[in-house]
Amino acid sequence: MPETNVDSLVASHDPTHPANLICELCRLFYNNGWVTGTGGGISIREGDLIYIAPSGVQKERMVPDNMFVMDLATKEYLRVPKSLKPSACTPLFLAAYTIRNAGACIHTHSQNAVVVSLLYDKVFTIANIEQIKALPKIVEPGYLGFFDTLTIPIIENTAHEEDLKDSLEQAITDYPSATAVLVRRHGIYVWGETVWKAKVYNEAIDYLLELAVKMRQLGIQPDGAIGSERNTRLV
Amino acid sequence: MPETNVDSLVASHDPTHPANLICELCRLFYNNGWVTGTGGGISIREGDLIYIAPSGVQKERMVPDNMFVMDLATKEYLRVPKSLKPSACTPLFLAAYTIRNAGACIHTHSQNAVVVSLLYDKVFTIANIEQIKALPKIVEPGYLGFFDTLTIPIIENTAHEEDLKDSLEQAITDYPSATAVLVRRHGIYVWGETVWKAKVYNEAIDYLLELAVKMRQLGIQPDGAIGSERNTRLV
Amino acid sequence: MPETNVDSLVASHDPTHPANLICELCRLFYNNGWVTGTGGGISIREGDLIYIAPSGVQKERMVPDNMFVMDLATKEYLRVPKSLKPSACTPLFLAAYTIRNAGACIHTHSQNAVVVSLLYDKVFTIANIEQIKALPKIVEPGYLGFFDTLTIPIIENTAHEEDLKDSLEQAITDYPSATAVLVRRHGIYVWGETVWKAKVYNEAIDYLLELAVKMRQLGIQPDGAIGSERNTRLV
Amino acid sequence: MPETNVDSLVASHDPTHPANLICELCRLFYNNGWVTGTGGGISIREGDLIYIAPSGVQKERMVPDNMFVMDLATKEYLRVPKSLKPSACTPLFLAAYTIRNAGACIHTHSQNAVVVSLLYDKVFTIANIEQIKALPKIVEPGYLGFFDTLTIPIIENTAHEEDLKDSLEQAITDYPSATAVLVRRHGIYVWGETVWKAKVYNEAIDYLLELAVKMRQLGIQPDGAIGSERNTRLV
Repeated sequence: MPETNVDSLVASHDPTHPANLICELCRLFYNNGWVTGTGGGISIREGDLIYIAPSGVQKERMVPDNMFVMDLATKEYLRVPKSLKPSACTPLFLAAYTIRNAGACIHTHSQNAVVVSLLYDKVFTIANIEQIKALPKIVEPGYLGFFDTLTIPIIENTAHEEDLKDSLEQAITDYPSATAVLVRRHGIYVWGETVWKAKVYNEAIDYLLELAVKMRQLGIQPDGAIGSERNTRLV
Repeated sequence: MPETNVDSLVASHDPTHPANLICELCRLFYNNGWVTGTGGGISIREGDLIYIAPSGVQKERMVPDNMFVMDLATKEYLRVPKSLKPSACTPLFLAAYTIRNAGACIHTHSQNAVVVSLLYDKVFTIANIEQIKALPKIVEPGYLGFFDTLTIPIIENTAHEEDLKDSLEQAITDYPSATAVLVRRHGIYVWGETVWKAKVYNEAIDYLLELAVKMRQLGIQPDGAIGSERNTRLV
Repeated sequence: MPETNVDSLVASHDPTHPANLICELCRLFYNNGWVTGTGGGISIREGDLIYIAPSGVQKERMVPDNMFVMDLATKEYLRVPKSLKPSACTPLFLAAYTIRNAGACIHTHSQNAVVVSLLYDKVFTIANIEQIKALPKIVEPGYLGFFDTLTIPIIENTAHEEDLKDSLEQAITDYPSATAVLVRRHGIYVWGETVWKAKVYNEAIDYLLELAVKMRQLGIQPDGAIGSERNTRLV
Repeated sequence: MPETNVDSLVASHDPTHPANLICELCRLFYNNGWVTGTGGGISIREGDLIYIAPSGVQKERMVPDNMFVMDLATKEYLRVPKSLKPSACTPLFLAAYTIRNAGACIHTHSQNAVVVSLLYDKVFTIANIEQIKALPKIVEPGYLGFFDTLTIPIIENTAHEEDLKDSLEQAITDYPSATAVLVRRHGIYVWGETVWKAKVYNEAIDYLLELAVKMRQLGIQPDGAIGSERNTRLV
């Protein structure tokens, strides 16, 4: 890892600069309980530059100067902040960038994600809920419809986060319409064409995960046909 | 749709100007989890002008310049913000304006609304709860009483939001005392004589939806007679 | 009601002036979900002056100019804000002032209070929880201990809030150690020697109400002996 | 207790000064519902000086001038704020400082901690959850792994908080890898090498306590083997 420290890469008065946005969004995610206890991570790509939050820091207290910057083409760090370790999520963010041409990738320890990962086996599915329409089809232009089924693959966790790389890449390949992967007993990775799309997808998915847990607790199948909930109603 | 772009319609230093209020209230609704993932919508009427938040944007990050403005009489857009799409909720907001002479209409994806829509068939009813008194009788002046039953019709969702128009209008006609309509597996529409009344009705209804889910989980009927909860107590 | 409008009674740069504090605390209570939809109320006494929030307004948007001021000795309004109605809670606040010499009284529609009122008959009791120690003994100086039982009477709701006066006064008389009264299917009244004590008691009680609901859902009696929860553990 | 009042010990423009940090962190903890109703406490050590929040005050409204300062070597108060009582947690904070050389100790009344204390007997254990990796091994350098079991001892509550000292010290001795102790029907004590580590450990533990309660409610053992949740899935 080079000792290079190119501070101008992360210094900007523009609030939409990736180094600034990462800090702003992590404060938001912290308030949602998604990245407490130094959990989670985030990366934004701008052209061939990748901005990555460091490992093991309080996500709500980061400043732009804490950001790693990598060259997507060479996978070399262009900037390494002093005294900080690169995120173990980096290989996983790179998978989203290289396989899917993502513009940003968000990783949270959302409890909704963890609980859903305990209730489902290989995939999480939910259907016939309006909020599904916020999510992209990916395999063709446009968004899912109300009657579509959202499918998110679930992979097994590993001792070291970077070792999730192979199974995450496999899941991305096996589920070409997925914009997220759940990691059992761990959390979720969500990516999108831009940072804002990644944020919106993450919000929409977390809403659906939360709703699915509530539905299961009420005995309603989240991917059940419209009207299948009537059995519960009559009880 | 005309290319007209009359910016003065949305530029004001007055925080109570509709274009400013829409932005403020959507930040509030976002923090309540009602409009995350670009979900939901809102419209305010001032005289014959209707202000409408655009489609598919992050509701907590809107600025007044993002607002559509329509002439209620002609249904023509007086202002179309650049690069934004009109809300698919527009025909539904118009139903509240034309059938009920509403001053504002709020649409959320509140999870309380979605869950209630899964637990009830054609109507949601709750009775004998103090918070009901925040809601209007509509068919006559004044507000519901503690012993009254609040009734909110539930309509089926459609693939496209604008296609809800006919069933929403039917529900408004069939339930003349309703100030809201639940959309199954989708959310809720709430309107009021003014934007503040719509906001208060929406808060009071969401409180009652949340309480109803809790009551059902405890085995208590939300529209049961006072004392009917005793059976649960004795278990 | 006199037309007197003595604005100096509510105009102060001191943030601890009752008219300012009422506004600050109601914003806090709103964020807790205790006074949404214009629900709830609050009053602070300073010497012989009683400051009371008006009826039917958005509690989080009040300004000091909205406050009613009453003379405790004569029960006459010294200040009546224009276009606002006196709170229907006023007779209930007066009960706390006259019977208990309270310095402030808080009324919320807390869902924890409403749910507990559905699960208990005449009184709510909880014991052997550390947070109980935040609550006063009242009948003698000092605070409850960890092994003590907190008892809060529950009265039936009435069509009009002011009609709660007799049963509230009776409950205050019958339960001399209570610093709060639950109103079934409605909410709670909490008072204290000062506004800060009332706020702290209200927070501690709401914490205990929330905990009691969770304990009941887990099959644990909130007023059970230490160790009685073991039956649940073993299941 | 000396009447000494050395104000310079707590007056600083540096936001990371212990007297300032205690105030900031308590506002954060209050918003999490961990220290409402004057509950909880916190202490930070800097060299041989111990800063301690006072007893029985609203934790979110403290100012640096409210802080007690003690000399760790002599256990004498170097500063006693006027009209405030020392925290009953002080002997417990001292246990963490002297036995574990902690840099800070946090005490909350978190409902997740209280509920877990009702569901477990002598120890709380959770395993195979990613968030566990935020917690230290203590008995050797480094952090717990995904496959490790986090163990937190539970001690019985006493009438007076200071009387927890002996059993807390015993638990710290008996569980050398624990960085926290649960107090049944009361809350939790969490400490760390620095104030930031204590904060992160507290966040990670509270996340795990919350998750454990959800797992139990779904019939899943929080310390069960990976895959043991499948029985629930199939139901």
